[in-house]
Amino acid sequence: MTDKTQETRRRGRRPGGTDTREALVTAAREVFIEQGFNGATVRAIATKAGVDAAMVNHWFGGKEGLFAEAVLKLPFNPADIIKTLLSAEPDDIGRTIVHTFVTTWDNTGGGVFTALMRSITSHEEAAVMLRDFFFKHVFKQVIARLAPDNYEFRATLVATQIVGMGMVRYVAKFEPFASADIDTVAAAVAPTLQRYITGKVD
Amino acid sequence: MTDKTQETRRRGRRPGGTDTREALVTAAREVFIEQGFNGATVRAIATKAGVDAAMVNHWFGGKEGLFAEAVLKLPFNPADIIKTLLSAEPDDIGRTIVHTFVTTWDNTGGGVFTALMRSITSHEEAAVMLRDFFFKHVFKQVIARLAPDNYEFRATLVATQIVGMGMVRYVAKFEPFASADIDTVAAAVAPTLQRYITGKVD
Repeated sequence: MTDKTQETRRRGRRPGGTDTREALVTAAREVFIEQGFNGATVRAIATKAGVDAAMVNHWFGGKEGLFAEAVLKLPFNPADIIKTLLSAEPDDIGRTIVHTFVTTWDNTGGGVFTALMRSITSHEEAAVMLRDFFFKHVFKQVIARLAPDNYEFRATLVATQIVGMGMVRYVAKFEPFASADIDTVAAAVAPTLQRYITGKVD
Repeated sequence: MTDKTQETRRRGRRPGGTDTREALVTAAREVFIEQGFNGATVRAIATKAGVDAAMVNHWFGGKEGLFAEAVLKLPFNPADIIKTLLSAEPDDIGRTIVHTFVTTWDNTGGGVFTALMRSITSHEEAAVMLRDFFFKHVFKQVIARLAPDNYEFRATLVATQIVGMGMVRYVAKFEPFASADIDTVAAAVAPTLQRYITGKVD
């Protein structure tokens, strides 16, 4: 690592264009895999990429967005998802979650979800990073705001239903769920998510 | 295939011991992968294994049990699961499903579930076989008996929650769900499964 960093420095910092963006993604993948989501710092990634740390915010809106693209290979920025979920009415959060996730996944034909699951079933480290990421940076913000108590357990319950929905719709392709329109899916599944977040779970 | 079958025939039928059992598992894996669950016949598998077709019932209780062991590599016979689920009171089916699946998976440390998911995320054919198998031979028997209507959609909803539960508990290992005792899991998840089978889903 030291050799590479020094070499990059000798070449000087890159400008703020798309090659900077790509350098950050490549460096981030290595640093996140070595250090995990929490251990990796924006500074370490930027140094490895040979660019200014401010470029992480510029291109990805922060460490989460960079992680989502570099490691989870998500074709959307989780910051947008969080924003949508935070703006939902408390008693509409179940329906909003179904609509947000299913719309996002449907738009990629489910390929992104399947790739993500393949990665976490094959690499323990990927599972750990996904967990840290969704827990500390997605679910915590959304669910802790709405949950009356016990929000960590509630967040894991929400995860069971979201992941299972994706597995059946995109990976196993069980019909009629796989082809059901989004309102049919929401009518069935939203009450489950709503109860997991704001209802009785014990 | 023909050469091998002829060779097996020249050697004569195997006796009914454990080598017969192993020969059936090996032959079944090939035939199921070539033909799919529905296309594969007990006769074709037995012929390929060079044993009498009655040995399939003797060792595996039928095609489903052989498939479960040869392809899904399940360390239990789905016939036992079906029997347990069929004997549940209708308003206790949600809790029975949680207890049956979680107990079975916990007993293998979740390794079996993870291997199954790795297989279906990596091989489309495995996903198709899993779907055919669970649909036509597990869910149909259990859910069609209890569901007031729309049992195929209900069965897929049940699948979302069961698969998601396994993904979060054994693959992603999200805490506190991953270490929660079975009664805590059942209290939270059983009402979901109960509604998916006997309640309102639209």
